[in-house]
Amino acid sequence: MPSSKNKKSALQETKSDPGLNLSQSSAEKIKALRRKSKDIQKLIQGILSGNKTDLSQAITLIESQSKRHAEDIKTIISTCLPYSNKSLRVGITGVPGVGKSTFIEQLGLLLVSKGHKVAVLAVDPSSSVTRGSILGDKTRMEKLVQHPMAYIRPTASGESLGGVARKTRESILLCEAAGFDILLIETVGVGQSETAVHSMTDFFLLLKLAGAGDELQGIKRGIIEMADAIVINKADGDNIKAAKKAKVEFNRALHMYPSKSNGWTPKVKLASALNNEGIENIWNMLSDYFTTAKTNGFFEEKRAGQNKFWLTQSIEDSLKKDFYQNENIKTEFPKILEKIHNQEMSPFEAAEYLLDKAKS
Amino acid sequence: MPSSKNKKSALQETKSDPGLNLSQSSAEKIKALRRKSKDIQKLIQGILSGNKTDLSQAITLIESQSKRHAEDIKTIISTCLPYSNKSLRVGITGVPGVGKSTFIEQLGLLLVSKGHKVAVLAVDPSSSVTRGSILGDKTRMEKLVQHPMAYIRPTASGESLGGVARKTRESILLCEAAGFDILLIETVGVGQSETAVHSMTDFFLLLKLAGAGDELQGIKRGIIEMADAIVINKADGDNIKAAKKAKVEFNRALHMYPSKSNGWTPKVKLASALNNEGIENIWNMLSDYFTTAKTNGFFEEKRAGQNKFWLTQSIEDSLKKDFYQNENIKTEFPKILEKIHNQEMSPFEAAEYLLDKAKS
Repeated sequence: MPSSKNKKSALQETKSDPGLNLSQSSAEKIKALRRKSKDIQKLIQGILSGNKTDLSQAITLIESQSKRHAEDIKTIISTCLPYSNKSLRVGITGVPGVGKSTFIEQLGLLLVSKGHKVAVLAVDPSSSVTRGSILGDKTRMEKLVQHPMAYIRPTASGESLGGVARKTRESILLCEAAGFDILLIETVGVGQSETAVHSMTDFFLLLKLAGAGDELQGIKRGIIEMADAIVINKADGDNIKAAKKAKVEFNRALHMYPSKSNGWTPKVKLASALNNEGIENIWNMLSDYFTTAKTNGFFEEKRAGQNKFWLTQSIEDSLKKDFYQNENIKTEFPKILEKIHNQEMSPFEAAEYLLDKAKS
Repeated sequence: MPSSKNKKSALQETKSDPGLNLSQSSAEKIKALRRKSKDIQKLIQGILSGNKTDLSQAITLIESQSKRHAEDIKTIISTCLPYSNKSLRVGITGVPGVGKSTFIEQLGLLLVSKGHKVAVLAVDPSSSVTRGSILGDKTRMEKLVQHPMAYIRPTASGESLGGVARKTRESILLCEAAGFDILLIETVGVGQSETAVHSMTDFFLLLKLAGAGDELQGIKRGIIEMADAIVINKADGDNIKAAKKAKVEFNRALHMYPSKSNGWTPKVKLASALNNEGIENIWNMLSDYFTTAKTNGFFEEKRAGQNKFWLTQSIEDSLKKDFYQNENIKTEFPKILEKIHNQEMSPFEAAEYLLDKAKS
């Protein structure tokens, strides 16, 4: 109802305009702008009332990256910002084939059954070739996607990690403003995407399979250090023995790292997403974590740290981009690398030279 | 002999100057400049002929950080640069008490006995309070320090890592220009100093002790991933059993990581620096590594990568420094952090705001 009222008053105002002596086209432009502004206000109202269609439309705007929408996006984000920050954000990673979709669907279904509103987002800075490998196919979570308390958003891909990360962070804010209280942020783990997801979530969960032989081979550098928990999926049927063995091995691996600053000891859990086994156990662990982290203040502290991280990261990305896209630098950089290679310049002298060039 | 000839000709030139009608003080200044320039040329000649006193004097200039010497340092570095790059650079780290000094002395003595010229440098960006914890006390390597083929340089400390790293890199160049063909770069591992040393050496060696219980606890994040070899020191007497057990455990730990891009599998070795046991074995390993890496091109490739790393690192450090030391930013930054905390601004919007402020 507020929206129809808004539309009406917009028309009224426009009707009273001719006295201002504007040209036809200026009047049209202003009219269009006002209409647009009303549309954005309507969209924001929709988001704040939990309307999934409006939420999707706003996320599409964020993903469009078009300059034409920059102001609208700014308005949407800044209006929604005060309503954000209230959810639990869980990062989930694992190689293709580990059963991420099934796991996320089962966890999501459990959470909605407990009365939570669950949003699933993804970070996938991979090329358009591998597009569809992550959440692209909504049918992979066909029960969850139909649930009124769940929202699943396939991701934009084929772009820079920085860009995708920002869009995901902003999508998180909007989902929170729309009342989703648990966010599951999935990543396929291309490039540095785990680090990005780790830096925007409260809890980071690594999905693994029990295989034959050495469980720890082939794990990307740094992933185990980031994990707050490792879930060994497909721990069913003939796999159970191997899964239990893997659990021991992962526990030993986790034990290798210095304890986390919040005092949390990373856990290893078994699950069979397919058979819906172990999921409740994992939610209990998450729940315990959040209770503790909120009580001891670490939850807030980590989020503040993440905000600062994204602030400085954005600043520094922009400074670097300005520098390396400077025309002088584009021309000089390969020449200078050659000079360093030929031992005609030290890297430090070369840096000073290029910094000078960028200013001239 | 060339130096005395130089001095003479400098005097002669100065004597022929009065015809130029310069004021007394200008003439004095030019005279001083020429003398200074001759001194620097003499110093460079000294370095290139392997004179340790001249080398030390040049490193002291590098460490002085005084603007007055900036031009001299530039001249020294750029003249020595073509003569550098020929040594093997070995990074060595380990916590205090692990026996780094004894180990380095024994390795150094072995190397000089094989006809190598060995220089020992250190990276220690710790405060002046802990000064002396690393190489400060030359007597810790009293045999090596007296050897004509060895050069030991205590480090400057109490500064930024970037500054210390640059000085160490430049000291490395000078040592190489002075004919030292094996450099041992020590670090106590304060802050990110291992990463810095790892990024300026060809081989990175972690010294450990066998202890009671879990060997892997308390190891700094990322160190094991950086290590090309782990040496378990003090593997003597009653310690031998524990050392062997630790070797198994470290081998398992190293096995956890993806293999290095050069195909090198990190090794675990036992040593007793005190009893001079295992040192030759470790040198054989280093020697094998260098032969392989030079044959398959990885040695050159790694150095080129390191040059690029230090180039971009210096550029980006400087860009950040300029930004954060901007007066507007110093004033605005804490206010903006507060706004982010109060959910009045997103980190991304805040970044754009601050980037604008820095330009105005």
